[in-house]
Amino acid sequence: MISTKFAIPDIIFGSGSISHLAECAKRVGAKRVFFVSDRGVEESGWVDLVRGILQVNNLDCVYFNDVNSNPRDEQVHRGAKYYLEEGCDVIIALGGGSPMDTAKGIGIIAGNGGEIRDYEGANRIMRPLPPMILIPSTAGSSSDISQFCIITDMEREVKMSIISRSLVPNMSIIDPQLLVTQSRSLILAAGIDALAHAIESYLSKLASPFTEVQALRAIELIVHNLRPAAEERDLKALEQMSIASTAAGMSFSNAGLGSLHALAHSLGGICDVLHGWVHPVLLPSVMRYNLPACVEKMGDIGRIISGSRMCSTKEAAVLGIDSLERMFADFGIDTKMRNLVPSKDTLEKICVTATHDACHLTNPRSATWEELMSICEEAW
Amino acid sequence: MISTKFAIPDIIFGSGSISHLAECAKRVGAKRVFFVSDRGVEESGWVDLVRGILQVNNLDCVYFNDVNSNPRDEQVHRGAKYYLEEGCDVIIALGGGSPMDTAKGIGIIAGNGGEIRDYEGANRIMRPLPPMILIPSTAGSSSDISQFCIITDMEREVKMSIISRSLVPNMSIIDPQLLVTQSRSLILAAGIDALAHAIESYLSKLASPFTEVQALRAIELIVHNLRPAAEERDLKALEQMSIASTAAGMSFSNAGLGSLHALAHSLGGICDVLHGWVHPVLLPSVMRYNLPACVEKMGDIGRIISGSRMCSTKEAAVLGIDSLERMFADFGIDTKMRNLVPSKDTLEKICVTATHDACHLTNPRSATWEELMSICEEAW
Repeated sequence: MISTKFAIPDIIFGSGSISHLAECAKRVGAKRVFFVSDRGVEESGWVDLVRGILQVNNLDCVYFNDVNSNPRDEQVHRGAKYYLEEGCDVIIALGGGSPMDTAKGIGIIAGNGGEIRDYEGANRIMRPLPPMILIPSTAGSSSDISQFCIITDMEREVKMSIISRSLVPNMSIIDPQLLVTQSRSLILAAGIDALAHAIESYLSKLASPFTEVQALRAIELIVHNLRPAAEERDLKALEQMSIASTAAGMSFSNAGLGSLHALAHSLGGICDVLHGWVHPVLLPSVMRYNLPACVEKMGDIGRIISGSRMCSTKEAAVLGIDSLERMFADFGIDTKMRNLVPSKDTLEKICVTATHDACHLTNPRSATWEELMSICEEAW
Repeated sequence: MISTKFAIPDIIFGSGSISHLAECAKRVGAKRVFFVSDRGVEESGWVDLVRGILQVNNLDCVYFNDVNSNPRDEQVHRGAKYYLEEGCDVIIALGGGSPMDTAKGIGIIAGNGGEIRDYEGANRIMRPLPPMILIPSTAGSSSDISQFCIITDMEREVKMSIISRSLVPNMSIIDPQLLVTQSRSLILAAGIDALAHAIESYLSKLASPFTEVQALRAIELIVHNLRPAAEERDLKALEQMSIASTAAGMSFSNAGLGSLHALAHSLGGICDVLHGWVHPVLLPSVMRYNLPACVEKMGDIGRIISGSRMCSTKEAAVLGIDSLERMFADFGIDTKMRNLVPSKDTLEKICVTATHDACHLTNPRSATWEELMSICEEAW
């Protein structure tokens, strides 16, 4: 095996783990915290809870909530300016991928200067970031675990993938209780994002034994727990979804993703759709395209998803894709590309842009923009 | 689930990964490295290789090899004095558990002062250690992954367990090529230590989903690869043993161990035996003692070890213990307690001391020193 790297943050996991926040913040030197969240999380009450924890522990708190669902370069720049003006030290983010990625972007600029687009791609960050503690409120993005930060360059309409070891926070505090205030729709979108992380990273060209074991575990947990988590908000199932999302994060952060995420980023930059809703549309088509390059691994995935052991590897692989399509249909999720993008004319731009995304490089089967077009057309 | 913590170092894994050493050392601020190894590793040639890597990269190197197979408090104190006198920065260790634990001990004293016995137990280290990069030359101790450091207090004849998040090094560089110069006997002793880490941590009271997945994976890999690794020094099998040992390290570092390790530490402090050779003697008896407290989990382990799926959980658990005994016998390993300790009179001291070891606290079934005596007598 060629050399492979594996890095994750320190993790505190479990119901009530958010109560350790102040002690963790102090350990990394917090006196004046820069706290990033968004309006959706404010409504749930968790923002007030965190502010309360900081206050009773004598930590100053500068609050920032200028965050879109696809966070923007200008928001990152405003946040970094605010962080520096206010003389903050530790950055804490609470939320889904959007507040966490915004916080990472703010950390990049606060520590390195320049504009966020200077850091697009892999390993472009040279100086350290402020200490960072991330608290996910969804079981999906795993930005709290990962080396990834996705920010939209508004001028170019591109969701930039920024990938660096420096983007792994000091600490991830994962409290499954935070998930109970999520809507069915958000639990589904996040859970399917975690599933896509697990599947793409398992098939990635950079997968290693350290990432593969996490990816397969994540797929198994999601297949068994997504329904009770989304439909009944069952706390046990939500906890399992948190574990799954964390495992998927350990995997994709170190193995990378694939063309599905390249397309999802590109599409999100141009059409501003919610990230998680792209996967049900494109995942099966991307898997069918990748199948010839990784039959064995797709068979492993298929056996877990379909629960069927008594068939050939190739049959299991196909059965896995079919089972995914059935699962999306059973949830009543829209799986038509035509409902995501304004017109077929946009597809070319989406596919050309996707070929420049760092995630595209680790897809198990190489693909031209024309081949990505055929994938999108299959899902039209 | 109550809150659980999970922390591991950054890992670089793979054949040839040792070539990244200088770049890693520089990233954590190295100019004058304190390099710890031992005479056994010197003979293999790897010590010269590391010194060469440091030299060609313009890094000063102060070398320390005053290391026993059960490293001693006085060695740690001499090392820390030497580190400080020489004005070193980063600590690098190359070897099995002994040089790595010595390096950790030196780091504790260099960063915190006092004597090493001041830090015995869990979470007693208050100030940071120098940056540390560990390079294992065995697939067993996983000191390069873990929060553990085991040092013998010569006066009290006690192998002290020191456990702290600060003992996780900045980086672990795991190069399976280093294993090819190991003897059959060392590969076996290390591999069985890794197996004991996996089994004890899977059954530990502090096991979590993040540690359990690693423990089971480690057991599976060891069962399949220990024989070809030890008997044929097969590079593929040695690589799998490295992966297994790393996975077992991720598990026990975060979940803790059990009474087997408590006894092995106590026995090693009093009789100075090689750590890995205690497990074949006591593991089956400790497992039989623990069985009533964790039948389900012992069943999981038994199914993996025996390869048998068509039996009840209880039967699988027992079959697993029997299979382990057969495996040790097939390797021709001594499994009699009477050949490890000078006389039966020593047993009481060994068992009383073991009840004070931090590892004893996480054993799935509590045990008095008298109950530990009956375990040792079963293995006599």
